[in-house]
Amino acid sequence: MATQTIPSEAQILSWYQTLSNWGRWGPDDERGTLNLITPAKRLQAAGLVREGLLISCARTIGWEPTVDSPMPARHFMLQSGEGEPAQAVGRSGASDAFLLAPHGVSMTHLDAPAHSHVRSDPAQPWTIYNGKPARLITTTQGATIGSIELAGGGIVSRGVLLDIPRTRNVAYLQGADPVFPEDLDAAEAAQGVRVEPGDILFVRTGFPRRRSELGPRPTAEGMSALQAACLPWLRERDVAVAGADTGNDVMPSQYPALGLPVHGVGMGAIGLWILDNPDYEELAVTCARLGRWEFQAVIGPLKLANSTGSPVNPLALL
Amino acid sequence: MATQTIPSEAQILSWYQTLSNWGRWGPDDERGTLNLITPAKRLQAAGLVREGLLISCARTIGWEPTVDSPMPARHFMLQSGEGEPAQAVGRSGASDAFLLAPHGVSMTHLDAPAHSHVRSDPAQPWTIYNGKPARLITTTQGATIGSIELAGGGIVSRGVLLDIPRTRNVAYLQGADPVFPEDLDAAEAAQGVRVEPGDILFVRTGFPRRRSELGPRPTAEGMSALQAACLPWLRERDVAVAGADTGNDVMPSQYPALGLPVHGVGMGAIGLWILDNPDYEELAVTCARLGRWEFQAVIGPLKLANSTGSPVNPLALL
Amino acid sequence: MATQTIPSEAQILSWYQTLSNWGRWGPDDERGTLNLITPAKRLQAAGLVREGLLISCARTIGWEPTVDSPMPARHFMLQSGEGEPAQAVGRSGASDAFLLAPHGVSMTHLDAPAHSHVRSDPAQPWTIYNGKPARLITTTQGATIGSIELAGGGIVSRGVLLDIPRTRNVAYLQGADPVFPEDLDAAEAAQGVRVEPGDILFVRTGFPRRRSELGPRPTAEGMSALQAACLPWLRERDVAVAGADTGNDVMPSQYPALGLPVHGVGMGAIGLWILDNPDYEELAVTCARLGRWEFQAVIGPLKLANSTGSPVNPLALL
Amino acid sequence: MATQTIPSEAQILSWYQTLSNWGRWGPDDERGTLNLITPAKRLQAAGLVREGLLISCARTIGWEPTVDSPMPARHFMLQSGEGEPAQAVGRSGASDAFLLAPHGVSMTHLDAPAHSHVRSDPAQPWTIYNGKPARLITTTQGATIGSIELAGGGIVSRGVLLDIPRTRNVAYLQGADPVFPEDLDAAEAAQGVRVEPGDILFVRTGFPRRRSELGPRPTAEGMSALQAACLPWLRERDVAVAGADTGNDVMPSQYPALGLPVHGVGMGAIGLWILDNPDYEELAVTCARLGRWEFQAVIGPLKLANSTGSPVNPLALL
Repeated sequence: MATQTIPSEAQILSWYQTLSNWGRWGPDDERGTLNLITPAKRLQAAGLVREGLLISCARTIGWEPTVDSPMPARHFMLQSGEGEPAQAVGRSGASDAFLLAPHGVSMTHLDAPAHSHVRSDPAQPWTIYNGKPARLITTTQGATIGSIELAGGGIVSRGVLLDIPRTRNVAYLQGADPVFPEDLDAAEAAQGVRVEPGDILFVRTGFPRRRSELGPRPTAEGMSALQAACLPWLRERDVAVAGADTGNDVMPSQYPALGLPVHGVGMGAIGLWILDNPDYEELAVTCARLGRWEFQAVIGPLKLANSTGSPVNPLALL
Repeated sequence: MATQTIPSEAQILSWYQTLSNWGRWGPDDERGTLNLITPAKRLQAAGLVREGLLISCARTIGWEPTVDSPMPARHFMLQSGEGEPAQAVGRSGASDAFLLAPHGVSMTHLDAPAHSHVRSDPAQPWTIYNGKPARLITTTQGATIGSIELAGGGIVSRGVLLDIPRTRNVAYLQGADPVFPEDLDAAEAAQGVRVEPGDILFVRTGFPRRRSELGPRPTAEGMSALQAACLPWLRERDVAVAGADTGNDVMPSQYPALGLPVHGVGMGAIGLWILDNPDYEELAVTCARLGRWEFQAVIGPLKLANSTGSPVNPLALL
Repeated sequence: MATQTIPSEAQILSWYQTLSNWGRWGPDDERGTLNLITPAKRLQAAGLVREGLLISCARTIGWEPTVDSPMPARHFMLQSGEGEPAQAVGRSGASDAFLLAPHGVSMTHLDAPAHSHVRSDPAQPWTIYNGKPARLITTTQGATIGSIELAGGGIVSRGVLLDIPRTRNVAYLQGADPVFPEDLDAAEAAQGVRVEPGDILFVRTGFPRRRSELGPRPTAEGMSALQAACLPWLRERDVAVAGADTGNDVMPSQYPALGLPVHGVGMGAIGLWILDNPDYEELAVTCARLGRWEFQAVIGPLKLANSTGSPVNPLALL
Repeated sequence: MATQTIPSEAQILSWYQTLSNWGRWGPDDERGTLNLITPAKRLQAAGLVREGLLISCARTIGWEPTVDSPMPARHFMLQSGEGEPAQAVGRSGASDAFLLAPHGVSMTHLDAPAHSHVRSDPAQPWTIYNGKPARLITTTQGATIGSIELAGGGIVSRGVLLDIPRTRNVAYLQGADPVFPEDLDAAEAAQGVRVEPGDILFVRTGFPRRRSELGPRPTAEGMSALQAACLPWLRERDVAVAGADTGNDVMPSQYPALGLPVHGVGMGAIGLWILDNPDYEELAVTCARLGRWEFQAVIGPLKLANSTGSPVNPLALL
């Protein structure tokens, strides 16, 4: 692999301008890289369904705290099957309620533009993608700009899986091991695939396999993800949605003074949509078996009014 | 239209046996009519994507109580864009939490088998589809059987929209006006389409249009949906998922002694999966414009552990 | 009754200075009028227990939406008595969880200083009582100043009930009928009692009786409470806690440009503690029967970390 | 100290009959030992206020998970002080919501009768105190019997603190060290006080001090509390409310086949009210300084409809 260069803080700050898509789709655009997905892309994607296989890329949403999910979602039964129904015969039922905070550390979710606020000049106000003021995301009204509703129409495009552990010939990445653009290039070469404009890019680090083998991840272990150096690559390739199977930003952050750079430059400047915490284990096995890493990818975010993200179940059809 | 017969309570109770799919896919099967969706069906569905059009069939999840959604979902901001970020430059963010009770009256959701408990003999215990005891759906553990996780792998098949108001030449059905099997037949004839085994059936009553025109629905108005008489039709056609754009059972119930018959016989006996509260307004307009009512339908339920259902954003690709 | 003068906006704004207790108990004081409650006051209060009678002044916290409580508290059972316990004999149990938003319109609660942010000069930052910046009450950390924990040690003092409907010879006040300082004086005279420094003042409008007789209150009806003109009276008497049996500020607000004046000048300038939505119906009957309107009053707020208020059950001992 | 005998399972089961208060206050009574608190008791209690001192016995309700509170309460800000108020001057505000599950392991709370279900004969249905069927505590309706509302009128009586570590001459009890009736007798003798009918009994193990010195308690450490052998003592003395400063039952349970015996026999048979997780550290220091361990004790449970308990802030006045 080629030498990997870790960009400096100054370089990352400069990317807020040089990688920016602000204005590219008009001054009022809020959808960012979703604009790259055309009917033609969706037709291309549908054409990739050849076996009729369907694979979910979502993790299970559980209810017990773990060291890597200390404040999990909560589940409340509103009616159970233990009671005595009002009817003697016919139909009764059970129902439940969920308390979900998608940006928590373990739930598969899609980030809305409102989730990332950026600025590179301390004299300017914080904004989201395309310059709208972050202060319009309020505690009382929620995301009055940049809401997940922007993707409420659904996201369907060609999906490409880049399987980094396979290319590196390991079972999974460990610790805070970063994924560099050279890794993405190497995976493309090894897999014989190329990421193109409007694609949904799934990047496998293998974290879900690591977790199932070694158990919940202590914070000190760190977490593999995209190194900020991948940002120019993502911009150049015009990726529509990027999702590493972790939190997408390496943990602990290599840029504590800047916050998360992939979420920052990616969402704030590029207008990139980010998928956090998916699971590509089954998909990776199937892709390897079929010898192809492209498919129809489908993401259907909930239309949560004025919200900063949604839990999702991303689907791959091959 | 042919004479429409409202089945009696006794008839509905008899259907618990005569329409049953118990044992059809083995004594331990929990997935019911999802077994009807094969790789071949998914290939067929992908082939229906011809324009690259993508249409969401989900309603927006809002936060304000209305007369037809008196206990809505709740939205809590965990971090807003109003505060002062820790960083001077770079990236900050906003996040939120949601309290969602999918079986409430207005959220688009998919019912899990655990949602419907049935019995036709008061001497027997209540069960879910295929005879598992309903008492295993507990307040402390949730749906230890029949969980929405059974559909966590995603649901993709050929979708068919039957547009009842279009066939009846009205803007939308009103009040408690039931949809009969004769309506389904008439829509098929008018649209030149036929529902086949493994299909995802969308039945339009037009309720979302009625609501946008006339405002929230008072309880006394009643709600249109599938009359129980449709149950033999659904079973005969081997529908995999059925979703009228209301609560699927006519309100107020015509069978108060039995509970909801479509949810009862449908889910409990047939093992049918039911989609509640979708919105087909945009889809109906597009289908009419294109002159075809079949498409690739995609539903990606959240993998909510031990749960009786999931909010979803059903997608149609044409 | 003497002529009642409705203060102007300018007058109310001037009270932010002229009625202020800022600095009175030191520059760092956060407890405001709770400083007026001394051990001697508590001894005096205990001496008022003569019959051994105990009366709650809290409303019931229910779970159903009503027109005057459209987003009520929520109740979730975590374990019920319907299931089969693990043990054959001995002890099993039931438990539950509550979602409570105390400042909602119907729950009896005590406001923390952090609940009211004030300024009278648009060039200055918003603050809470004694000048601490309101921006320290954050969405991520909560009330890092002015938390209800300041009253976590409990509040016990002499309580005085001023029964306005009794003085006016009506069953209860109706609509947006304001209580003026002349009403307070008249009630004192009629009851033969005088409010003194450090007292807990209960002001009865009779709203709970009106509600039980006439049903939930439509918003358009308005709500009786303390007119802003009472503020100098409250300050002059050095009341420690004030609680009218409504939301304390007349609704609809007579000062929409200023927000709620009793909560504003009262909490922000005077450092007054406010009790919202209590119920004095039983207490009023007992006081009238005994011919005395003073008692030991006890309020035990929950020690909710970094919070803007707490539900409470205020108790009166006579 | 006299020899301490650990009762057998059979003995505990026998106490369900021999210590029972069922029927003592009539066949329909739901209030159990609260019947022991008379106006005369409340007068006696008020007479114990001699210094005007007020001490809270509640723990702080925090929001972060710990090893001994892995699923803590949750705090949501609904409005903060970070945003821009609608008004230019006057009053704005902040508010919040709480998700509280009182029977969790760290919140000071009062158990309602509905919290404990008992039976000593496997052929009989489970019941709460005085024989009402536990199945009436349902997931959909909550505690339709035995609700905390039974104590909604407030609880005020003579309080007595028995300080076990002081008597044993240690800073605090450690691990699963049980408190025996001999400990209660020894504390009475050492302190010169005697627990009488209708009293509120506070039993100090010193756990909060142990926790502040040693940090959160790992589960394996166990937890000190009342050994089941104290049950006849509590019944004989006619205690109205009992509250050790832990979960009241020794952990891990010495009677896993029976569930928690103090909660079982105490609440189910005796009709005793139990206060869980209070904090007597400040109270113990003050009692020792004053040389008296009796006081006015006040508990004001929230009137939570159909609920199995309430968070409380128990107050002691001396």
